Amino acid sequence: MRILSGVKSSGRPHIGNYFGAIRQFIDLQTKGEGYYFVADLHALDQIRDAETMRELTLGVALDYIALGLDPEHCMLYVQSHVPEVSQLQWIIGSVTPLGQMLRAHAYKDAQAKGREVDFGLFAYPLLMAADILNVRANVVPVGKDQKQHLELTRDIAVKFNMTYCPDFDPQTGEGGVLNLPDPMILEEVAVVPGTDGQKMGKSDGNTIPLFGTDKVVKKAIMGIVTDSTPIEEPKDPDACNVYAILKLFLDETGQAEVRGRYTAGGTGYGDFKKLLLEKFHERFDAARAKREELLQNLDYVHDVLAKGAKSARQTGGEVLADVQAACGIR
Amino acid sequence: MRILSGVKSSGRPHIGNYFGAIRQFIDLQTKGEGYYFVADLHALDQIRDAETMRELTLGVALDYIALGLDPEHCMLYVQSHVPEVSQLQWIIGSVTPLGQMLRAHAYKDAQAKGREVDFGLFAYPLLMAADILNVRANVVPVGKDQKQHLELTRDIAVKFNMTYCPDFDPQTGEGGVLNLPDPMILEEVAVVPGTDGQKMGKSDGNTIPLFGTDKVVKKAIMGIVTDSTPIEEPKDPDACNVYAILKLFLDETGQAEVRGRYTAGGTGYGDFKKLLLEKFHERFDAARAKREELLQNLDYVHDVLAKGAKSARQTGGEVLADVQAACGIR
Repeated sequence: MRILSGVKSSGRPHIGNYFGAIRQFIDLQTKGEGYYFVADLHALDQIRDAETMRELTLGVALDYIALGLDPEHCMLYVQSHVPEVSQLQWIIGSVTPLGQMLRAHAYKDAQAKGREVDFGLFAYPLLMAADILNVRANVVPVGKDQKQHLELTRDIAVKFNMTYCPDFDPQTGEGGVLNLPDPMILEEVAVVPGTDGQKMGKSDGNTIPLFGTDKVVKKAIMGIVTDSTPIEEPKDPDACNVYAILKLFLDETGQAEVRGRYTAGGTGYGDFKKLLLEKFHERFDAARAKREELLQNLDYVHDVLAKGAKSARQTGGEVLADVQAACGIR
Repeated sequence: MRILSGVKSSGRPHIGNYFGAIRQFIDLQTKGEGYYFVADLHALDQIRDAETMRELTLGVALDYIALGLDPEHCMLYVQSHVPEVSQLQWIIGSVTPLGQMLRAHAYKDAQAKGREVDFGLFAYPLLMAADILNVRANVVPVGKDQKQHLELTRDIAVKFNMTYCPDFDPQTGEGGVLNLPDPMILEEVAVVPGTDGQKMGKSDGNTIPLFGTDKVVKKAIMGIVTDSTPIEEPKDPDACNVYAILKLFLDETGQAEVRGRYTAGGTGYGDFKKLLLEKFHERFDAARAKREELLQNLDYVHDVLAKGAKSARQTGGEVLADVQAACGIR
């Protein structure tokens, strides 16, 4: 089983990203042949500065390796290092009904918000389809919001195979040149609130960055918005932003213990924040140190990315050759 | 001056194509550095059979060389042999407002006709922009109907340069990584009528194919629809489909002479058709023989295409590297 997971290089990761997606993505490396890519071509829609783009793209690679992605056992590559993806994107677009693209969520959402949409945002489900088909991924873990785009990938693959492969059987998915991927819908994760109580990342400066400096992390955690219940009084953990984040770091026993301290009274929010800070460092300091180490050893990181790109180009080259032969442009 | 001209491999050329465009395209080879490409990626929108696509793509190359394109002095290549074009297409699409694409003629025309539009047709002005920018073309000869798409190419190049190149000056066009092309609007050519009096190529089977067999060409010409004026009576050349085609083969003296025979009466339409057949062979037999020769020497044709692709990839690779560096994906 080949699993593909892409991460857009459009921002720095925070603990909302971690508990919401990154952790699950990395866990999947044990479940099959893992392909992970940094989606810089997708990020072009948002990042319009070269230095920032370079930093974020390399950054994603560093983050993932630091957080436990094992480059010995999975492939990690940068999307733009695989030209076959762009080539495939155009070809499969030729058989994709425009109507289907106009119904895609990302575009409709942006439109509904009155956002000015560039072609790149509009066309992105097609590039995503090419990412997936390029490495013949069987399984693509996504959140619920990406389910429709994945269905589009399947539809496109079916349409292409139906158009060009006489032996294709849509029932079994056999006999075509494009592999039909299956979605793996990630378990619904409770929304992680930011330091201001809104969803983390939703508003500016409400995140706790995974790889911020100690000072930045401390400031973010100590700045979590709480109410003004006095120290001695009992507090409601379920109404507290600190607890909502803290519980992600605790097992059931730990959660029960902390809830007890909330309801008993006598502990101030500041103490819970200090506990959160402690847990944060317990959980992430190894990854944070590892990332610093990787920064001192960028040759290694570039080697990892080169090996990943080579592998993605190898499979992608085979897929592209089959596709080109099927439609007669080779 | 670098001139770029692309020909979609979606059909066999007829004399309407020749007098309307091909002749002018080929003449341009003396005016600058000529780049000619067979637009197979564009043709994917129409041709959905591998064998047909292969035949038509090679066919365009044979046609152009047979009709006088000189591979010693210009570059001739197949679009899909230049991956840089697809890569560039995605990147420039990222900064192209969707609204501009929605206003493009090809899409609006297809929509107005109630035709089911695939993404490939919708996105084609963007691939056309990539074709042009890929070889840093200065001049692109087009018919009036393509003027808007060319303006889009310029707009995209300006937008990209404005976004990513601090030194770009939109007044002079200097200081950017993408070269701003100029349109060269081809002289308005009278519409060439088909054998049924409609525009040639507009309806099925109304064409006189440049490279049809002698039998096919004769049948097409002798089948031109005329009225039933008897042989002895005077005839109006300006109301005659045969004359409308015949005059394309004649200089002024020749035209005056034939008009005289029309108005004098005593010559039947059959004779004018025979004259047209004669003129057709006079004009095209060398090219037709040359094409047969080339068919016996496909290695040469493939060498020409390989040389062309190498050159387009060379320039395209430089452009792409500049573009990638400018937006930080390299």
